[in-house]
Amino acid sequence: MPAKKLRVLPLGGLGEIGKNMTVVEYDGRIVVVDTGLMFPTAEMLGIDLVLPDFSYLRDRADDIEAIVLTHGHEDHVGALPYVLRQIGYPPVIYGGLLTIGMVRSKLSEHKLDDAPLQDLPAGQTVEVGPFSLELIHLSHSIPDARGVLLTTELGPMLMTGDYKFDQTPVDGRPADISRLAELGREGLLLLCGDSTNADRPGIAPSESSVGPALLETFASCKGRVIVTSFASNIHRVQQVIDAAVALDRRVALVGRSMRKNFNIASSLGIAEAPSGLFIQPREIEDFPDEKVIVISTGSQGEPLSALRRMANNDHRDVELHSGDTVVFSATPVPGNERAVNETVDRIYEIGASVVTAKDAPIHASGHGWQEELKLMLNLTKPQYVLPVHGDHQRLRLHSELAQAVGIPEENIFKGRNGLPLEIDEQGAAFGEEIHAGVIFVDGVDIGEPDDVALRDRREISADGIFIVVATISSDDGEVVTDPEVIFRGVAFLDEADALVEELKDVVETSLEDAAEAGNREVGLIQEDLHDAIARLVYERLRRRPMVLPVVVEV
Amino acid sequence: MPAKKLRVLPLGGLGEIGKNMTVVEYDGRIVVVDTGLMFPTAEMLGIDLVLPDFSYLRDRADDIEAIVLTHGHEDHVGALPYVLRQIGYPPVIYGGLLTIGMVRSKLSEHKLDDAPLQDLPAGQTVEVGPFSLELIHLSHSIPDARGVLLTTELGPMLMTGDYKFDQTPVDGRPADISRLAELGREGLLLLCGDSTNADRPGIAPSESSVGPALLETFASCKGRVIVTSFASNIHRVQQVIDAAVALDRRVALVGRSMRKNFNIASSLGIAEAPSGLFIQPREIEDFPDEKVIVISTGSQGEPLSALRRMANNDHRDVELHSGDTVVFSATPVPGNERAVNETVDRIYEIGASVVTAKDAPIHASGHGWQEELKLMLNLTKPQYVLPVHGDHQRLRLHSELAQAVGIPEENIFKGRNGLPLEIDEQGAAFGEEIHAGVIFVDGVDIGEPDDVALRDRREISADGIFIVVATISSDDGEVVTDPEVIFRGVAFLDEADALVEELKDVVETSLEDAAEAGNREVGLIQEDLHDAIARLVYERLRRRPMVLPVVVEV
Repeated sequence: MPAKKLRVLPLGGLGEIGKNMTVVEYDGRIVVVDTGLMFPTAEMLGIDLVLPDFSYLRDRADDIEAIVLTHGHEDHVGALPYVLRQIGYPPVIYGGLLTIGMVRSKLSEHKLDDAPLQDLPAGQTVEVGPFSLELIHLSHSIPDARGVLLTTELGPMLMTGDYKFDQTPVDGRPADISRLAELGREGLLLLCGDSTNADRPGIAPSESSVGPALLETFASCKGRVIVTSFASNIHRVQQVIDAAVALDRRVALVGRSMRKNFNIASSLGIAEAPSGLFIQPREIEDFPDEKVIVISTGSQGEPLSALRRMANNDHRDVELHSGDTVVFSATPVPGNERAVNETVDRIYEIGASVVTAKDAPIHASGHGWQEELKLMLNLTKPQYVLPVHGDHQRLRLHSELAQAVGIPEENIFKGRNGLPLEIDEQGAAFGEEIHAGVIFVDGVDIGEPDDVALRDRREISADGIFIVVATISSDDGEVVTDPEVIFRGVAFLDEADALVEELKDVVETSLEDAAEAGNREVGLIQEDLHDAIARLVYERLRRRPMVLPVVVEV
Repeated sequence: MPAKKLRVLPLGGLGEIGKNMTVVEYDGRIVVVDTGLMFPTAEMLGIDLVLPDFSYLRDRADDIEAIVLTHGHEDHVGALPYVLRQIGYPPVIYGGLLTIGMVRSKLSEHKLDDAPLQDLPAGQTVEVGPFSLELIHLSHSIPDARGVLLTTELGPMLMTGDYKFDQTPVDGRPADISRLAELGREGLLLLCGDSTNADRPGIAPSESSVGPALLETFASCKGRVIVTSFASNIHRVQQVIDAAVALDRRVALVGRSMRKNFNIASSLGIAEAPSGLFIQPREIEDFPDEKVIVISTGSQGEPLSALRRMANNDHRDVELHSGDTVVFSATPVPGNERAVNETVDRIYEIGASVVTAKDAPIHASGHGWQEELKLMLNLTKPQYVLPVHGDHQRLRLHSELAQAVGIPEENIFKGRNGLPLEIDEQGAAFGEEIHAGVIFVDGVDIGEPDDVALRDRREISADGIFIVVATISSDDGEVVTDPEVIFRGVAFLDEADALVEELKDVVETSLEDAAEAGNREVGLIQEDLHDAIARLVYERLRRRPMVLPVVVEV
């Protein structure tokens, strides 16, 4: 790659919602913006997490000047422990105050306590190799969200991260519109903007509009109130706490991440509660129902979350009952609809009441809507635009918004993961595409999704597995003992004994044939056995379980 | 059970959307209303279909007078082949004309051609044991939907099946409001009503309002149009055909069920198309894009459907490209959101346009909204109400609607699957609950969801399986040959060879210990082996795959 070219390579987050990660290169040096993850679908059997494929960075580890994190959500920071373990520590990892606080706690769980984390205040400029780096304060559904401004000799580029233009954020610190306008006046080379809500006309409601709606909702509840929201939405939790104070109810934080995030935010001065307000989860039942608000994880119906356990009558401290009201101060992230619906319906089955964002304005998205995306474009007046952070539909809609505000179509780039946008003094164009797949995390190990083990899991989970063990004499290939036939995961096998006997016969016949033919190659014998068994199983069951023949020579 | 008691036992459809099936008993005799199925979730590994547990009917097969089908949707008729195969044929199976036509075709695929199917015209009364049976014409998203009126000495009960009050249905035959009002005047004992849209205020749009919106949408398309809808929604397909005729476009029906259902409806005179309108799927590419409308299956993102294949660039006859417009004349059934979103986004990725029911009024639900449910209650004035066909939330909302129109709360029954409502001259009350589980269909076999095979599938699909084969001498228990260690589905095993060697050592040690201790019981030896292997695997991998030791004595 020739020097003096700016290269922006998205490894994740384009054509999908999740695992945001972008490599920015100039003059052979690299800044990585965000290292996010995605959660697996049920089809990814046994997989715990999905990461962007960052193998591109493995050979370039020495070229990395910094990792910069826009904010503390998992889809922007969740892959960091795995990235650090694979490519080692970069010289520095920057982010806002809460972001660094949350990441420090996460890395500590991964025994990466000595990672070079550094809080970079918004508006302060640091030199990072050939880049100047400045974080620009924006608002989002987590405090301390920042846009990342990286300036090279070619000019400044801005990665917005997730943002909305909330004019009345809970912490009283709206997005730094003045700085964005300054970029527009001085000339922004490239804008990589959040596309999440590119399909929603208008302007997202302010986070501070949620508080009064929550207060009103809680005030009408006669019994206990259980509120669920994202644990990282500190300002939302703060507003629930404020409403609890106003209604003279005690508050219990339930769910590990809820307590952890509040403690981090509280220690950084970002959240606060009057002393004596909190009660322990185990104390909840000691207080009258009308004097308690429970703030719980589980707004997305996560299987092991506190709220899901409550809905399944399986939570240690909270037993839901008629008279309780469960307030969903969140909407389902696409893909989670079924899990959320199931949770809601179990709560109805118990006889408790449910209030969702359909019933009252108790949720506000953290991502700007169309008019906000247009405002960002009009403020920063970028020469080039690369919509990011969205599925293909939203990337396209964001492109259309950019055209609508007057950006020439040829300056708007519809990218995809692995496709680098290259900019030099002559102009901008896509460079050579690299493979941009995913990495799966399974337990402590990471690997490729085409790992044969995952194909095997799919095969066995669909139809089960037959294992046949046969012993033959190493002298003459004759069968030594009765073969063993074992199966697992073969459903509804009513006449198993008869089938097993049939299979044993087939095995013996196959082995005798081999012995007669003088075939003494164990591999070949096993192949013949496999085919004979698979044929009979299919004839009898009309299914194709995995067949595993083991021939032992004694 | 004492005679002269009406017993209404829902086996499915309450607390869920799907697998509707209800047993109605009087004087020891049974009419079964609907035999529906549900589709499995991804968590039900390898399962093809989910049926209501109808084992209650096994001992009562001789008491069944008839099976009555309200309409031809899978969640009302899909379990019929399995029910018939398990409990034999009842004397008669009744339904509307199209219902019987569709079921005949389905049963034929299951080699049940001689089932006693009979079309029962709406308004005609037949005696069925101690019941009088009349089907009442209603409107829904499939033609020939009927309410089931079963009259005993205690009075008439009405199971609505799925319905809406469409005042301008496509076939010009609105619901028989007059007959419903007559029931109200004469005194209806019990109403079991569809709760699907109990959460939607107002009145569902008429099916015939969809046609003009489709025409307008198609008229603005410059290139090819691909419309997807439910194959069973004959009136929707008819409206697409009418629009195609108006716009001088040829029509290709793509997807097996789309062609099959249209053919059945057409042969019954329920759907029609001018001759020469249809082209074969393989001819599509022979016509100019602006002269073709494709009507395709796949509106729910079903993995093997025609549209999903097109979106994946994997359809034999249709290759989507920029300029095409894909029109979703359907909304995602709850639970299908992710599959539909994925399909939509792949179409965007290809560069084609997408129009959904969010963009234009091109879909109308087949289930009545709140004002329609209230109208049904006010027309029929039932003494007792049992909301059916809905999750717990919608059953509760339907109960609240019944209260709102003046039904006393104590006459509204919040039921669940397996809980019989019993009515006699003294009144109505829930009887003794029976187990109402589900039956899984896997290939050709059916069975219980707690089948050990499914637990095994879950275990293996999460962490894989280790199989260890050891041969010992039947004389002295000494190890005869090197043990074999095989694993499948164990992901990302970088140091497999080392682990296998370690495991072999552990196996040999365990076997030697057994031999020394004089332990010659193969079961016990295998148990010790299992524990030793599982321990080492967990230490090394932090995972708990299934461990299967096989000890062969030679």
